[in-house]
Amino acid sequence: MRIVIPLFDGFTALDAVGPYEVLKMLPGAETVFAAETAGPVRDSAKTLALTADAAFGDITACDVLVVPGGRGVRDFLTDPGLLDWVRRMHATTTWTTSVCTGSLALAAAGLLDGLTAASHWSAAEDLNELGAVYTGERVVFHDEQRIVTSAGVSSGIDMALALAGRIAGRTTAEAIQLMIEYDPQPPFDAGSLDKAPQAAKDLLTAGLNR
Amino acid sequence: MRIVIPLFDGFTALDAVGPYEVLKMLPGAETVFAAETAGPVRDSAKTLALTADAAFGDITACDVLVVPGGRGVRDFLTDPGLLDWVRRMHATTTWTTSVCTGSLALAAAGLLDGLTAASHWSAAEDLNELGAVYTGERVVFHDEQRIVTSAGVSSGIDMALALAGRIAGRTTAEAIQLMIEYDPQPPFDAGSLDKAPQAAKDLLTAGLNR
Repeated sequence: MRIVIPLFDGFTALDAVGPYEVLKMLPGAETVFAAETAGPVRDSAKTLALTADAAFGDITACDVLVVPGGRGVRDFLTDPGLLDWVRRMHATTTWTTSVCTGSLALAAAGLLDGLTAASHWSAAEDLNELGAVYTGERVVFHDEQRIVTSAGVSSGIDMALALAGRIAGRTTAEAIQLMIEYDPQPPFDAGSLDKAPQAAKDLLTAGLNR
Repeated sequence: MRIVIPLFDGFTALDAVGPYEVLKMLPGAETVFAAETAGPVRDSAKTLALTADAAFGDITACDVLVVPGGRGVRDFLTDPGLLDWVRRMHATTTWTTSVCTGSLALAAAGLLDGLTAASHWSAAEDLNELGAVYTGERVVFHDEQRIVTSAGVSSGIDMALALAGRIAGRTTAEAIQLMIEYDPQPPFDAGSLDKAPQAAKDLLTAGLNR
C-alpha cells in the first residue's frame, strides 16, 4: 500500500507529519514524500525543511494520497500541471485525502464539486468559491468519491486514525492510537471558532508568527 | 527567544513537529532544528528526513530546548558528547523539555534525578533505571528545575500549548490552539494503556510497522 504525501514550498509541517505518523504504521504501508523536484522543501515559516524522496513525475499511482495545506497551497492552486497530477493520482487511489487548506487543492482539481468538505476555518469562503461546500466538521468522509477532507492542521491525526480504521480495521487503528499515545488533553479549550474566546481571535487578527 | 529542537537518526517526526508547530508561533520565536552535523536526518521509519539547519557545535545557548524521542534515542544516550551538549544547553534555557522517549535523554544527562517525569508508556522502566520516576501523566512541569516532560509522541502538542501559556500567557496559547485548530476528536478511545482494548495491545506486541 503506497501512501504519497506531496510537499510544496510553504506547506504546514504538522499537516503532513500528523497523518504520516499514523498511516506509516499500517500493515504493508510504504510512505513516500514527493515534490515537484526531489530534495528539501521548506514549510510556511521557512524554519523547517522536509525531504521529498521522489519527484511528482516519478509517481504514477498510489493507494492513499494525503495533501497537506499551508500558505503555499495558493501557488499550488494556480499550477495546471500540479492540479493535473492530483487528478491523475486520484484516478488510482483508494482514498484521496487532505488536511487543512489541502482541501483547496482537491477543490481546484475539481474533485470536490458540490461535496461537503472540511478545511482550515479561515479558508471556508475560498473553499466554497472553488465549488465545495465548507463544513465545520473535523473529518468528512465521502465513501463513493473515495475522498476524505479534514479541518485545520492538527485534525490530520484524527483523519488518519479514522482512515486507518477503514483500511485495516478498528483494532489496528486502536493499536496505532496507543503507539502514538493519542490521549489528547489540551490545556485550553480554544480549538475551534465556537470555543475560542474573543481575545484569542482578536490576537490572531492582529497577527501571530506563522 | 531561541527554540532549539535536536534531531538524531531514528527520531520520531511527530515528537518534533507537534511542538514546533505550536512554539514557532510565539512572539519573537526563532526556531532552529539542529543535529550532530547540519543536513537531513532520517526518522525511525527512514521514510522521512527533516533538515537540521545547524550543528550542535554551532549552538551555545537557547531559551527553550525540545528533545524528541524515537528508537534512535538509544544511541543518543550512550554518546557522552551529546549528553554533555544537553547539559550545557540546559544551563542556558528558560525551559528544557522532552517529548516521548526524549525524557530518557534528559534522564541520561542527569537532569531528572529523583524527579517525576513523563515518557512513552513503553519506556517507563528505562526511565526509572536512569534515575527519574515515571508517571503516566501527560505533561509534567517542574518549575524550579525548569523542566517539562511529556508522554508519547502526540503529547508534545499538549505540552507545547501548556508551555506557550507559561511563556506568553493564556490568550496567546489559545490563539495558537485556534490557529492549529486543535479541537481533538479521536475516532477511538485507545490512547493510553488504561483505555486501549486488550486486542489492540496484543497487536502491538505482535508488531506493527514503525
